[in-house]
Amino acid sequence: MRFLHTADWHIGRRLHGFDLREEQQFAFQQIEQIALQEKVDGIIVAGDLYDRSLPSEESVATLNQMLRQLNLQDKLPLYVISGNHDSATRLGTGQEWYTTTQFYLHTDLQQALTPIELTDTQIFLVPYFEPFAARQLFKDDSLHNLQSTMHLLITKMKQQFVPHKKHILVAHFFVSGSTKSDSETALTIGGLAPISADLLQDFDYVALGHLHNEAALHLPNARYSGSPVKFSLSEAEQQKGVWIVDTDPLQLTFKPLKMLHDVHQLIGDFETLLSESFYHNLNLQDFFGITLTDKQPIPNVLARLREIYPNIISLERSQNYLMPTKQITDAQIRQRDPLTLLTQVYQDATDSNLTEQQRKWAIKALKQAQNEVK
Amino acid sequence: MRFLHTADWHIGRRLHGFDLREEQQFAFQQIEQIALQEKVDGIIVAGDLYDRSLPSEESVATLNQMLRQLNLQDKLPLYVISGNHDSATRLGTGQEWYTTTQFYLHTDLQQALTPIELTDTQIFLVPYFEPFAARQLFKDDSLHNLQSTMHLLITKMKQQFVPHKKHILVAHFFVSGSTKSDSETALTIGGLAPISADLLQDFDYVALGHLHNEAALHLPNARYSGSPVKFSLSEAEQQKGVWIVDTDPLQLTFKPLKMLHDVHQLIGDFETLLSESFYHNLNLQDFFGITLTDKQPIPNVLARLREIYPNIISLERSQNYLMPTKQITDAQIRQRDPLTLLTQVYQDATDSNLTEQQRKWAIKALKQAQNEVK
Repeated sequence: MRFLHTADWHIGRRLHGFDLREEQQFAFQQIEQIALQEKVDGIIVAGDLYDRSLPSEESVATLNQMLRQLNLQDKLPLYVISGNHDSATRLGTGQEWYTTTQFYLHTDLQQALTPIELTDTQIFLVPYFEPFAARQLFKDDSLHNLQSTMHLLITKMKQQFVPHKKHILVAHFFVSGSTKSDSETALTIGGLAPISADLLQDFDYVALGHLHNEAALHLPNARYSGSPVKFSLSEAEQQKGVWIVDTDPLQLTFKPLKMLHDVHQLIGDFETLLSESFYHNLNLQDFFGITLTDKQPIPNVLARLREIYPNIISLERSQNYLMPTKQITDAQIRQRDPLTLLTQVYQDATDSNLTEQQRKWAIKALKQAQNEVK
Repeated sequence: MRFLHTADWHIGRRLHGFDLREEQQFAFQQIEQIALQEKVDGIIVAGDLYDRSLPSEESVATLNQMLRQLNLQDKLPLYVISGNHDSATRLGTGQEWYTTTQFYLHTDLQQALTPIELTDTQIFLVPYFEPFAARQLFKDDSLHNLQSTMHLLITKMKQQFVPHKKHILVAHFFVSGSTKSDSETALTIGGLAPISADLLQDFDYVALGHLHNEAALHLPNARYSGSPVKFSLSEAEQQKGVWIVDTDPLQLTFKPLKMLHDVHQLIGDFETLLSESFYHNLNLQDFFGITLTDKQPIPNVLARLREIYPNIISLERSQNYLMPTKQITDAQIRQRDPLTLLTQVYQDATDSNLTEQQRKWAIKALKQAQNEVK
């Protein structure tokens, strides 16, 4: 069979204050087109459909529309789990009815043990869960981490393996050895630790969600799809996309997705960044994280950069500009006289000393300030 | 055909801080039993399934379970609309799939014009809507109130009437001439006005939601079901229940619901209310609104009443206790000496004068207080 594997849609997410609705719709339309062109037998969405457990009304309307489009319009079977960003209860609403059109949505751990039975494939949908859910379900107080719980779960799954069928696992967790981006929420809080890759070896394919970079893990039989949209500056260089998974024989093909507005890291001095020769090849409506290499102060720096780059998602100086001030303690600052401090700050910020004229101005200004205090 | 008509479940509602979950579950179980015993052809829920547009996870789980129970377990067709307390978008999630099991949930005004077609009945489900939704749908900026919009809607519905069928309207609004309780949110905000009863005359039955008292309106062909649970002290004397609606010929039978914990208004003096002979016939776990007729101050009055009545939802004095103090202005108060004021307050609160001994104590206490200020 042939599946499309995606995950981490994070509907409702913002990128440093910028709305990502249009980006997400643009990615969704490509995913739909790929699914139809590749004539897949179903779409796997491995968790984090919403960005928040309490999505806005608009996010609810958006996701509802996407799921309707794929399942009711395009008649594509859907295999979906809730992720750590979803509220299992809210996302799970209606799931008992969805199965009538082959839309399988698992949000409760107990459902993980009942595979979806296709002619030649069994799909185990394991929603994201907290260890206490496993302790409750299995009445076993020793289940304190993900590794031991998944070991138990997978043992129980394997007891249900129909030998001649292919076995697909859909899950949302961190597999040890994977590399992270900045935009995933840590799952290690609350006793959860990464699970080891060898646990996954008995499945023909493991469709993973949680990490936003498809390159985070490349096992022969296990992949993250990554998110369809870039959610942080650290993802600037990542290629977003979805996997087309042929099961017999196993063949994995990565289908890249175009970004409506891409995310870039720009590093350079202020003058260069504002010169037309530098930016004339850029799509200026893209999202930019800017690191300035300048050492001197620049008045209204953000406003002036925004005249060229309206969608700036971060602005930093390369390390030289800020580092030195961190090396002075509060106690040291209090012991120094104002002129020494001012001289030091100027030196830290610009890597050069006050000129004699600047020094005179500084003395005059400080004297004036002190008189005003008295 | 035979329907059960209920409305205004308000899942998630609290009664002066007290959780109503158990009350609502208790009422739900009775509704289910009545539906099964009466062998109804479907259940109508005329809006306000949730109490808030953003229900808690627990409320979502509760309502989901109720709807599953009725539709998937009991195989009862459901005819449901959203009310002014529901978020149409959130409640509407999944509705396209629900119809496969005859669960008809309308949350969008446009859906009102497409009746649910049964063998001998047409059911028009009109979700609660704001006038701007009607202006958008009909591209008619003159639709500024409910009356004109409903007139237009009903005209369009009548064009679709199949003559030999019965016609049922399900709606959530205030029909003029109805009487209100304290627990409904006013619908007159934002340009909505009550609609007149004569608009409803062409329907065989109009199943209304919004008002919590079934007795609010008794037209031959139109009823409120009222809420299944008492949501305010003003509903203490109401009989809660559901309607069994036989359509051919029209016959309306009110089926009362028992309260798990009833709501009562108690009026009496403190001593009487705390005497066993007064309360021994009461269910002390019920909810009580208490009005004390005493005129003198009673220390720790609420705590002492709660020893007998743990679920007090309001505590008031009958008017005599508080009225007189309101008649003194701030300016008057400032002009009087402390002893005069104290005498006046005592007189207002108890309707009697200070005794000579009390007066001596008061003078002594005031002198002491003044010395401490100096």
